[in-house]
Amino acid sequence: MKDKDYINLIISTKLAYFSKIKGFMILRPYGYKIWENIKNILNKMLIKTNHENVYFPLLIPKSLFNIENNYIKSFSKECAIVTHSRLKIKDNKVIIDPSSKLNEELIIRPTSETIIWDTYKEWIQSYRDLPVLINQWSNVVRLEMKNKIFIRNSEFLWQEGHTAHAYKKDAIIEINIIKKIYKNLIKKKLSIPFISGYKTNIEKFSGAKYTYSFESLTKYNGKSIQLATIHFLAKNFSKAFNVMFTNKNGKKKYVWSTSWGISTRLIGAIIMIHSDNKGLILPPKIAPIQVVIIPIINNKNLIYKNKINNIIKKIINNLKKIKIKVKYDNNKYITPGNKFFKYEKMGVPIRITIGKKEIDKNIMEITRRDNFKKYYLNINNFKKKIIKILNKIQKNIYIKAKKNMKKKTFFIDDYNLFKEKIYNNCGFIISHWDKNNKTELKIKEETKATIRCIPNKFKEKGRCIYSGKKSYKRVVFGKSY
Amino acid sequence: MKDKDYINLIISTKLAYFSKIKGFMILRPYGYKIWENIKNILNKMLIKTNHENVYFPLLIPKSLFNIENNYIKSFSKECAIVTHSRLKIKDNKVIIDPSSKLNEELIIRPTSETIIWDTYKEWIQSYRDLPVLINQWSNVVRLEMKNKIFIRNSEFLWQEGHTAHAYKKDAIIEINIIKKIYKNLIKKKLSIPFISGYKTNIEKFSGAKYTYSFESLTKYNGKSIQLATIHFLAKNFSKAFNVMFTNKNGKKKYVWSTSWGISTRLIGAIIMIHSDNKGLILPPKIAPIQVVIIPIINNKNLIYKNKINNIIKKIINNLKKIKIKVKYDNNKYITPGNKFFKYEKMGVPIRITIGKKEIDKNIMEITRRDNFKKYYLNINNFKKKIIKILNKIQKNIYIKAKKNMKKKTFFIDDYNLFKEKIYNNCGFIISHWDKNNKTELKIKEETKATIRCIPNKFKEKGRCIYSGKKSYKRVVFGKSY
Repeated sequence: MKDKDYINLIISTKLAYFSKIKGFMILRPYGYKIWENIKNILNKMLIKTNHENVYFPLLIPKSLFNIENNYIKSFSKECAIVTHSRLKIKDNKVIIDPSSKLNEELIIRPTSETIIWDTYKEWIQSYRDLPVLINQWSNVVRLEMKNKIFIRNSEFLWQEGHTAHAYKKDAIIEINIIKKIYKNLIKKKLSIPFISGYKTNIEKFSGAKYTYSFESLTKYNGKSIQLATIHFLAKNFSKAFNVMFTNKNGKKKYVWSTSWGISTRLIGAIIMIHSDNKGLILPPKIAPIQVVIIPIINNKNLIYKNKINNIIKKIINNLKKIKIKVKYDNNKYITPGNKFFKYEKMGVPIRITIGKKEIDKNIMEITRRDNFKKYYLNINNFKKKIIKILNKIQKNIYIKAKKNMKKKTFFIDDYNLFKEKIYNNCGFIISHWDKNNKTELKIKEETKATIRCIPNKFKEKGRCIYSGKKSYKRVVFGKSY
Repeated sequence: MKDKDYINLIISTKLAYFSKIKGFMILRPYGYKIWENIKNILNKMLIKTNHENVYFPLLIPKSLFNIENNYIKSFSKECAIVTHSRLKIKDNKVIIDPSSKLNEELIIRPTSETIIWDTYKEWIQSYRDLPVLINQWSNVVRLEMKNKIFIRNSEFLWQEGHTAHAYKKDAIIEINIIKKIYKNLIKKKLSIPFISGYKTNIEKFSGAKYTYSFESLTKYNGKSIQLATIHFLAKNFSKAFNVMFTNKNGKKKYVWSTSWGISTRLIGAIIMIHSDNKGLILPPKIAPIQVVIIPIINNKNLIYKNKINNIIKKIINNLKKIKIKVKYDNNKYITPGNKFFKYEKMGVPIRITIGKKEIDKNIMEITRRDNFKKYYLNINNFKKKIIKILNKIQKNIYIKAKKNMKKKTFFIDDYNLFKEKIYNNCGFIISHWDKNNKTELKIKEETKATIRCIPNKFKEKGRCIYSGKKSYKRVVFGKSY
């Protein structure tokens, strides 16, 4: 999918809109509903595993950025910094009142580790206060130079989990719980296939001991796209912010911690991974409209109009009973053909059409968005079948995307071939690497490819694709957004 | 309720916590859940009336503040202004990189009218694009000088509706819909009594033609507290931002508009209106825990422990079946007495206790938080009764609060008495006013009382309490937060 097509699709289906400030987007109702659906699904899973939602302030005092050594490195170049508090009018122009300079500048959160750990210091005293399993749904700002709507916004909506634990093993258990939850969300609800594994030291979140990430491939240009990250922070933040607890033996210990997040970027991933030349294809589980009903009424069957409307009303009631999100488009100024075109573009999983022909036979015509396969269901007996078809779509688009990912995944041991594949955006390149930062940077310099992650599964002896040195594991290279 | 007690209650029940930056609060899980409950209830009502959620950017270019003449007056003195984008480390200290000054300063939204209307200009062309019924759940920043946690925060969470209509009558219908929704939320879900009416020109939102507001009184100090506002913006913003549509006759017309909002301030109102000397009293419909179950197990009835636990498990299952939010506190290190104290303070509507005595009789003991009335219900047959009791609590705390509001509402026609009542924080003073801005300001100067709202219901001839001039309506005075 070309950049231009990607943007056109987002604008024409009214998922989002560009704001006048570079990198800031407006989520329109159709796009926001997708986010709400993702949020509701994930939130339920988090609550079920004893996480609790909170809200920490948007603004962070500058001084907190100086505490965790590595943290500032990650975000120093993309901070929105608040320095003044008053506007005034001078010569009919709005200007900043220079006398309103703040004593200490405030930074809009790029992520909330600092302000949260500065508070945990006061909340955590004893082993009885642990674990702290906290999650926050919020907006964050990172004024990035290069923007791509949904994928790399200067402001995005996300969820950030921040947990504190008495023992390392508890933090590891937490990470495994979140791995399972994210896997479930990405694979089962968004129908997105992925490779997951650890980030290299260069690619990991700088405040973390290690970062685990989920990566997928776009359909057309084979770029890799990061879907979610989980950070094992070890004692980095508890030491930096001096967060200690008294254990059962009365001894003071630093707490262990994790953080993890997903964002509105997932909507970008859905678009880039599932769309075809007719437009979006939305996974049924997060689609704002799961079924659209379009009546076929023309001059020849006007007498059927009432009959059709009555039957459609019944169908809608039945769909609502099984909690299917249905839209009835009976706008008489738009032809059925144009409606087909519109809802195909919007990626609505199922289209139901009913006209004279169908009424006569007591059936409805069903068309799947993912493969345009048609079904004819009895008007009085379709509920279970519709649910079955939605589930089939959910699985089928996962299988399609997985096939595409496989087709674009190559095991390569020759650096020239590696360069050629990367140059042609061929997807994931699974190659040996000598675990050396310098090698990683050299490869990035020469090919723009980065190590997307190091999965456990590619354990095997070999030689580094670049240096020829010994390697015991293959890693996943790719060109990322 | 003294300020100190109000703050102590918020901190000790873990509703919220102070951030290090003045006026910024941390919503802890218990407080955040109340907000989520309010949000879910209101959101359903808005969706049902065809409103759609969106998300507009946090940051607004300074130039947009210059467009609607009155708008800047409201917020110019409390803006968080972003001027730079990079931090750097110099001599081991974090400083702002002076070379990162932005071309145009960005303001964190104090409310979103400007950026939304600047966008509506592009979305609204024809009568077919109308109405636009949009709502946003977001955070806003107003760096106020005087803060009071929940009531007057520098950052708060809220909902802001922004609608556009072809005709004035459509905008008025919209306002009536929102009035009804807010009334339902405040009265039926939060059990808060109110007086509602129009704001004076001085007190209204400066961008509005008129503002309608809902006002209540705190329980102890009789201060008035604004709960929600609805603004009829007429054509103010469409003219300022040049938003026109082509009507059915092909003519270009400015659109009509409204905006309206409620915020986390409502949590402050709940605390100030319902609490008693034992702590919070939460309306069941928004309480994070509606029922707490406390087992009474001591040395004498240890043999009953398993029996009690099994029965409580059954009770919990039954409560969950009817979607009651239940907490089972079986912490063995805390005495039942201390648990009673804790959940009373947290305002949990119903406490269930079960011990040997109850098991023997096959009953549970139920205690209401609002009046400590006790009920004894059969363990196998209590579902309908529990729901009934929750509804009784919901109504009873409304009636109590309404009685308190009535007791503190005075019809006064003598300015000396007026001053005395206001000085003693006696609540709402219903008096005649000559509709003159100067009179209003003079009264404020002399007594600190403002006109909270002008309800329709006090139509009656009289003389202004201050000037003695003719008046045709009484208005509501009060000292506000």
